[in-house]
Amino acid sequence: MSAKPLSILPITSFPMVKAGDDLVDFLITSHQMEYPVQPQDIIVITQKIVSKSEGRLRDLRQVEPGEKALDLAAICEKDPRLVQLILEESSEILRVRKGLLIVKHRLGFVCANAGIDHSNTVEGDKEEDFVLLLPENPDQSAARIQKEFFSRTGIDIGVMIIDSHGRAWRNGTVGTAIGVANVPGLVDLRGHKDLFGYTLRATLIAAADELAAAASLVMGQANEAVPCVIARGFPYPLREASLSELIRPDELDLFK
Amino acid sequence: MSAKPLSILPITSFPMVKAGDDLVDFLITSHQMEYPVQPQDIIVITQKIVSKSEGRLRDLRQVEPGEKALDLAAICEKDPRLVQLILEESSEILRVRKGLLIVKHRLGFVCANAGIDHSNTVEGDKEEDFVLLLPENPDQSAARIQKEFFSRTGIDIGVMIIDSHGRAWRNGTVGTAIGVANVPGLVDLRGHKDLFGYTLRATLIAAADELAAAASLVMGQANEAVPCVIARGFPYPLREASLSELIRPDELDLFK
Repeated sequence: MSAKPLSILPITSFPMVKAGDDLVDFLITSHQMEYPVQPQDIIVITQKIVSKSEGRLRDLRQVEPGEKALDLAAICEKDPRLVQLILEESSEILRVRKGLLIVKHRLGFVCANAGIDHSNTVEGDKEEDFVLLLPENPDQSAARIQKEFFSRTGIDIGVMIIDSHGRAWRNGTVGTAIGVANVPGLVDLRGHKDLFGYTLRATLIAAADELAAAASLVMGQANEAVPCVIARGFPYPLREASLSELIRPDELDLFK
Repeated sequence: MSAKPLSILPITSFPMVKAGDDLVDFLITSHQMEYPVQPQDIIVITQKIVSKSEGRLRDLRQVEPGEKALDLAAICEKDPRLVQLILEESSEILRVRKGLLIVKHRLGFVCANAGIDHSNTVEGDKEEDFVLLLPENPDQSAARIQKEFFSRTGIDIGVMIIDSHGRAWRNGTVGTAIGVANVPGLVDLRGHKDLFGYTLRATLIAAADELAAAASLVMGQANEAVPCVIARGFPYPLREASLSELIRPDELDLFK
């Protein structure tokens, strides 16, 4: 491994995405217009457009909150119908306070509100009526995009789906991987030596999350339409992977 | 704000650093050789070389563990002299288990072992005798480098010092800011609207930490000597800042 530059290239020509759209079509068109993808590039995609293409939009007016949702909603002061969806998307409720609901998502990771997004969902409709769930299975979504991109272009890339997550002890959100295909979640350098021949200390690197943060920085959250970036110069070999490598097992989670 | 590429450019010509060295000298020489710094670039530096230049190396043979250190060392099975130094660098012990000591560092953030590094410290000496503490005050160190770089080159940049931190719920370490100068820790987009005029959800972005993760990815942890990178294309305006914006106040910390 020799040190080389990392470039995060924003795709700004991406069209609006709606249910049933084929993201691979859009990716092939957009990358050709802006930054032609090269082998070993990684395409990083925000969960929002993956969810939209998969039809994960939900109309709160059609959600009937159960008893547990009503109880939790009273504590966290959120819409009980939203809380009902959060419960359905979660395997465990970890913290409930006013304005806050932290859960273990059914996909394994810990996040606020089960990653359910309340903004930027349906053009023209009222914001408060529609919410967007995370993709059904982001690893599978990433893998499908990765394979189809290869079969249609002959270019072997990595694909990662990300979201913005809060942290336990630090303010602000950071881009975080929620699905990977052909991108290593963890890079294990245990046993490697440093410059002086000493054994390394921090040797299990969350490389996918570091890349997710870099991509998120370029995507921004504001008025820009950058749902997707191309990462060039990722310093580790691409390989088969799944998000599960990044999830700390319950028995090692010190802060539940 | 328009979307532009972000580049993380590795500086590989950096010499070995020892106590008393002037990092600004090295930075000026290195950047001229490799990637000449431009206004608004951010220089990201690993804590390790800042600590070394500040003489933060400690010889464990000169450390006398107190009673509390001996007690904790028995639980976490670490060297009691190392635990003594961890205690001196911490304001609070949060978790102690076999192999693990998570603290609130006196600098405010939560991390393992008070960020004390046991590897790659003294050429030729025995690894187990020397450890490296974090810089005395990374915000001040970053500010000093930022100001001096400007006064000697006329180029106005940002400077950030980073370390590798673990996370509560996810495996692996990610690059994390421990000191900033002229780099916004948080970017507050509250009140901004998205493409459809809806209010944004994730609107408090830990931009410095996202950049720290990107930089860490390029620095790696292995045999490479990349203690420093230049980040070009950071998407937010540079401004005065301090690490404290990134630290969640105790009363909002849900996982203590």
